[in-house]
Amino acid sequence: MLYHQLHVELAETYPIYIGTELLANGDLIKQYVAGKQVLIVTNSQVAPFYLEQVQRALAPLQCHAVILPDGEEFKTQTSLNLIYQALIEHNHHRDTTLLALGGGVIGDITGFAAATYQRGVCFLQMPTTLLAQVDAAVGGKTGINFLQAKNMVGCIYQPRAVFIDILTLHTLPLREFRAGLAEVIKYAVLSGKALIECIETTIQTPFTNNHEVWANLITQCCAIKASYVKVDQHDHGPRLLLNLGHTFAHALETITHYKRWLHGEAVAIGLYAAALLSHELGYLNAATLAQIDQLLAIAGLPRRIPSDISLDNLLALMWQDKKIKQQQLRFVLIRQFGDCFICDNIAEATIYRVLNKSMSGEKHGI
Amino acid sequence: MLYHQLHVELAETYPIYIGTELLANGDLIKQYVAGKQVLIVTNSQVAPFYLEQVQRALAPLQCHAVILPDGEEFKTQTSLNLIYQALIEHNHHRDTTLLALGGGVIGDITGFAAATYQRGVCFLQMPTTLLAQVDAAVGGKTGINFLQAKNMVGCIYQPRAVFIDILTLHTLPLREFRAGLAEVIKYAVLSGKALIECIETTIQTPFTNNHEVWANLITQCCAIKASYVKVDQHDHGPRLLLNLGHTFAHALETITHYKRWLHGEAVAIGLYAAALLSHELGYLNAATLAQIDQLLAIAGLPRRIPSDISLDNLLALMWQDKKIKQQQLRFVLIRQFGDCFICDNIAEATIYRVLNKSMSGEKHGI
Repeated sequence: MLYHQLHVELAETYPIYIGTELLANGDLIKQYVAGKQVLIVTNSQVAPFYLEQVQRALAPLQCHAVILPDGEEFKTQTSLNLIYQALIEHNHHRDTTLLALGGGVIGDITGFAAATYQRGVCFLQMPTTLLAQVDAAVGGKTGINFLQAKNMVGCIYQPRAVFIDILTLHTLPLREFRAGLAEVIKYAVLSGKALIECIETTIQTPFTNNHEVWANLITQCCAIKASYVKVDQHDHGPRLLLNLGHTFAHALETITHYKRWLHGEAVAIGLYAAALLSHELGYLNAATLAQIDQLLAIAGLPRRIPSDISLDNLLALMWQDKKIKQQQLRFVLIRQFGDCFICDNIAEATIYRVLNKSMSGEKHGI
Repeated sequence: MLYHQLHVELAETYPIYIGTELLANGDLIKQYVAGKQVLIVTNSQVAPFYLEQVQRALAPLQCHAVILPDGEEFKTQTSLNLIYQALIEHNHHRDTTLLALGGGVIGDITGFAAATYQRGVCFLQMPTTLLAQVDAAVGGKTGINFLQAKNMVGCIYQPRAVFIDILTLHTLPLREFRAGLAEVIKYAVLSGKALIECIETTIQTPFTNNHEVWANLITQCCAIKASYVKVDQHDHGPRLLLNLGHTFAHALETITHYKRWLHGEAVAIGLYAAALLSHELGYLNAATLAQIDQLLAIAGLPRRIPSDISLDNLLALMWQDKKIKQQQLRFVLIRQFGDCFICDNIAEATIYRVLNKSMSGEKHGI
């Protein structure tokens, strides 16, 4: 077992462990369990691989499990209620611990259940997808979709600890692994050239037998995320930069009912669109735009909006994005690697033009 | 307009205004509205008296209203969803403000909606019942009942300001006014002889034309509540003392499906049972027990468990009370006025004996 350890510094600091064989490490995990009861929440994809292992590690605690169906379309109040029902049925007390074993959807629902069961119980994160490991599991955003609106209902609620066992990535489908790389690339764009170069090398290195290299990369991403969370837990200022690419991504996911792309794939298209918008507005040079495009390509990610998407509908949906404030659409723009900023007052016509340029088949000079 | 002002001192301190003609005071209220949108949540009982007045005070803000049916049985996820739906339908942004205009049920649901809509929006309390004014509106407990279990789902979420307009008590039915006195008496038992004497005088003074006297009493109660919240926002230690009488009360409410008593009436019976238990265990002398009984009687409150209640069922229900921890039933006991404490290890037989003694018709030496 190897591991790195970070600390998310908030009023109540909590640790993130990044390493191997963490899921089976009962001694470590049990240090963070509040009482004698644990409810593991996982999904039908992850449970066959890891549920038993975690349950064994938690013995002799009283341990129950809820296995939800897999997918963003199950990030609903119905799933949330299954968790509440299990907690009540098994008579879980206020000192129970909820453990999220799975990807971002599982982490978000479980975190929200933990934030709201009996006005808040202990919460542990065990992210098993690359995307959740570098993004969703750190920072305390929890929630569910409501009436088709993404994350419309939720809380900021920090876990007591995060256990990132990178060995779980061995059972992650390749497509999902790649989707996680979209968020990794986002961090690199936000943080600067050093991480960009580190990624270029790492993503061309096979994951198997390169655990230390990948653990390092994931640790760097978590550290970047933690630094934003530290200064702006409630997402009113600097943390909004982490939405780079996400205004586009959320609209793309919504218009396709979360069925066409994985979240990371939508983020990849959104990242490229954000870069293109930054270029269009004269902030980003063509060479850096091309480098971002190239990095997404190496990661095997989609970058263009397919031509069958209605841009009019897409634009209308972006107005429903929850980050809308004061009737202005908000975008994160890029000046260069390590230098991004928030821009509120972009003309709809400009956004339409960029969306149009981003459509597959367009070459727009690159 | 007269008013008192208190401050609840937390990481983010917020004010409580206690006085007259506050609901119509747009200049004051609007200082605490976050953006340009407000959703007022109220019920069918309160709306005819005060909704229009508050809406007028908030002009020219964009102001919508949700009117829920009145009663504890509507403190459900269904009501909560009506609020979310209204917010989404009217396109309320992250800088919207939710305003609870009503009693404890309205305050709790609205607070929970505010805590969870888009991961937390601005929340104002305008309690219109005595019970909500002295208790529910202060301290940030929010939530709904779930599967018949009281407050099983909720958050701690503080309002940005509380406006207690005591003139709303003029339209409060007498039975509800009296129910509020149960919590007032609870504070007096917790805080000491001075407040006991103040209450004895005040509750024999008619409310009309004695606004200043009643505003003083309500201010004292809020100050006591705020002092407990300050030291223990998350209800893990000293704040648990505020549950004096509530372990019994919750079970009584549940066993009668919230239909037989108002919350304050159940608290009155619970207060007397807690006093009786304290006496039974040798902590409280007979004279003080009699004085508590007398105070509840002057307030026109029930004090005895009716003989048609099954004590076996009641005892079983108490195990489901959400304050159960580590398999122990938890009670707040009284040594004397101003000296209460938490007791975890009381034998079931003792509790059964006290419940039995508390049954109507029993005189048990008083």
